[in-house]
Amino acid sequence: MNESAIDLSIGALRSAYASGALRPSDVMASALQRLARPDQEAVWISTVDPDRAMAAAQALDARVGEIEALPLFGTVFSVKDNIDVAGFETTAACPAFAYRPDRSATVIARAEAAGALCLGKTNLDQFATGLVGLRSPHGAPRNPHNARYIPGGSSSGAAVSVATGAVSFAFGTDTGGSGRVPASYNGIVGLKPAPGDWSRSGLVYACRSFDTATVFARNLDDALAVDAVVRGADETDAFSRAIIRAPAASPRVAIVPPDRAETFGDTVVQALYAAAHARATRVFPTLTPADIEPFLAINELMFFGPFLSERDVSVGAFIDAHSEACHPVVRDLIVKSRRFSAADAYRAAYAVEEARRATAGFFEAHDVLVTPTVGALATLAMCEADPLGPNFRNGYYTNFANPLGLAALSIPAGRAPDGVPWGITLYALPERAATLARAAAVFMEGAQA
Amino acid sequence: MNESAIDLSIGALRSAYASGALRPSDVMASALQRLARPDQEAVWISTVDPDRAMAAAQALDARVGEIEALPLFGTVFSVKDNIDVAGFETTAACPAFAYRPDRSATVIARAEAAGALCLGKTNLDQFATGLVGLRSPHGAPRNPHNARYIPGGSSSGAAVSVATGAVSFAFGTDTGGSGRVPASYNGIVGLKPAPGDWSRSGLVYACRSFDTATVFARNLDDALAVDAVVRGADETDAFSRAIIRAPAASPRVAIVPPDRAETFGDTVVQALYAAAHARATRVFPTLTPADIEPFLAINELMFFGPFLSERDVSVGAFIDAHSEACHPVVRDLIVKSRRFSAADAYRAAYAVEEARRATAGFFEAHDVLVTPTVGALATLAMCEADPLGPNFRNGYYTNFANPLGLAALSIPAGRAPDGVPWGITLYALPERAATLARAAAVFMEGAQA
Repeated sequence: MNESAIDLSIGALRSAYASGALRPSDVMASALQRLARPDQEAVWISTVDPDRAMAAAQALDARVGEIEALPLFGTVFSVKDNIDVAGFETTAACPAFAYRPDRSATVIARAEAAGALCLGKTNLDQFATGLVGLRSPHGAPRNPHNARYIPGGSSSGAAVSVATGAVSFAFGTDTGGSGRVPASYNGIVGLKPAPGDWSRSGLVYACRSFDTATVFARNLDDALAVDAVVRGADETDAFSRAIIRAPAASPRVAIVPPDRAETFGDTVVQALYAAAHARATRVFPTLTPADIEPFLAINELMFFGPFLSERDVSVGAFIDAHSEACHPVVRDLIVKSRRFSAADAYRAAYAVEEARRATAGFFEAHDVLVTPTVGALATLAMCEADPLGPNFRNGYYTNFANPLGLAALSIPAGRAPDGVPWGITLYALPERAATLARAAAVFMEGAQA
Repeated sequence: MNESAIDLSIGALRSAYASGALRPSDVMASALQRLARPDQEAVWISTVDPDRAMAAAQALDARVGEIEALPLFGTVFSVKDNIDVAGFETTAACPAFAYRPDRSATVIARAEAAGALCLGKTNLDQFATGLVGLRSPHGAPRNPHNARYIPGGSSSGAAVSVATGAVSFAFGTDTGGSGRVPASYNGIVGLKPAPGDWSRSGLVYACRSFDTATVFARNLDDALAVDAVVRGADETDAFSRAIIRAPAASPRVAIVPPDRAETFGDTVVQALYAAAHARATRVFPTLTPADIEPFLAINELMFFGPFLSERDVSVGAFIDAHSEACHPVVRDLIVKSRRFSAADAYRAAYAVEEARRATAGFFEAHDVLVTPTVGALATLAMCEADPLGPNFRNGYYTNFANPLGLAALSIPAGRAPDGVPWGITLYALPERAATLARAAAVFMEGAQA
């Protein structure tokens, strides 16, 4: 058997296990070999001990009879290094910050209980502060489709581990777009649950008010399989809760019209979005144009406002004690947040509340909002010339989702002529997560809703 | 007819109207006369124009046939002067702050649409900052039961207007106890809905994160009648929502045991609470002891923490421009809040979230928590000697309710030997507001649940 040919997607593995064509130990042996390939460079911060990993896989071999009860049986996954996994250090891409957690994050424990095997911890913009994937002392994971482009961040290693076929799925996190922007740049699915839908117990917080963990996968079904396993209330996370609703038969979808979409002059994205819009028009008979100004109203606050102080609460004391150990862009952003007063923080909270009110009518009339995931494609050279501009542009469409409590799903929607992928994002209220998934499936399959 | 003998309670008025014994104009004439009595001194900041009020009452006279559709038909009410009523200035007990609102607060408009008539605006601790009722340039309303005691605040005039029989009910507000503490000192019912249950559109915010409007009434049925009219979603208040559930048949009630209740050495309250506890034991067969430490964990934050900066957002610019126009205790509290950083505000938010988590188990096991409303009785002399201590003690049991999202109901539960009343408070989650009311009725009627 040519091990490098194993398709690690959840659906393919389950078929192969069920038929007896593969055992988890076959998959693990192949997966461990792949970790040494050049396309995994700067993707991983730490990887599993091979002997322990093989032992765990072999233990699963004997349990193939339980596969029906184990929805992630024999799948392999990576974990962004700001999420705790017992047996690994958590570093948040800052080696001096490293600590060894006693227990795994709840979402990790749930995935493992469902039969999934962890391969290691992935690279990120330090302290999850960035949307580019370049702000790490470990260097930047290479975009597997075109190395001139950024991998996207902050979950850079997570997305690349999926796009290169090194894992079945990857856990990331998302505050302002970190679970969606890298999905777009890597041509994969990025599912960001609404804040509270997944436990955050065991995460290094960026903005504790609305951080979430996320999943990257190569197809929608895989992302939804992981979502089904990990979502739900967790008594160790005060924010978590359980909301599950059946999908609407005919999702009411609204989309930002191409002539009103901000693309920062990127003609490639303009063409990609025009094509995506045409496809949406074809597959959603009731498609209507969306006004997203009320959603964008809090963008400035998210990037430049007092929410940055939440990062200071999370890691500020460490930064003060280890200034030299921190990425300068990240450190400066966080330290400068100390100019914000408590009154500023409350004003920002009220602005979010107003934006929620201003967008409530949209969600009475519609189930799903569709926008580009990124409005312009960023290259390494662009980010080198300007560390903040492309980062801001990457977040233009992603920032509002978490403060407004929305679920979001970035799905592939084409490629630039030079090969770099690009995606659209669908957003919905938490109680419509199932409708969101259905709308994404309709778009991807091209069938009419 | 001896007008001074008219019982203005909602139930009594409705009977008198239905039988034809009274007309709204009879009631209004009597109510307007009462406003000149000595017991109304310092209760009112502004009162209705008598001619306009009589015209409005006479217009209602002709509509007595509609009484079934108008649940507050011909009742008269007062409004704390930090709530907008069209035709009146809103001053928040700071004359220089006065403005003339274009429209009434949503709760006022709903009460008027249900047939209620506004008599005027009542005194308060300036900017609703206080729990004593003494921090006003208009002086302090006299406690009608024993003038040595404070009226309680910040809704001092509201509570005294009800206790003296001048109105059928009164609107107040509550951030840290302002809708409950004065109810205890005045021997009346104070109903504080959970944040979001009533619209706050048209309120001068104290802490916009969790302020609520409230109602004071002489009996529980009257308070519930007003609650039924004004509660519910309001599209002009982003925080508002509609949750209504049927009451539980047998409320699961837990009470702080007398030997673990903080009473600050007040032996009178100790005796009153022992009696209330004995009564609760009699009427609630399943009564269990409550541990309220997890609720009290955020008391310090509420009094001395960054939430004070919310008051600064609301009125800080005014205070800076009119320092001399402000009560010195109120002004200093608000201005000193500027030492708090955005990080402090987020830390406080996380502490509230932790307290919510720590108390979630309580509300899985119980429907209703019972505590004293105030743990010690404060006199004017005590507050003169120490403007902050008695204020803090008044809030010991009341502070946690709004940040934790609870509904609370203060009901009379006895009198000190010198005549000053005292009450207990029942708390519940918003979805159990009906159960809360049922438990209060059981306690007050002395029947077994």
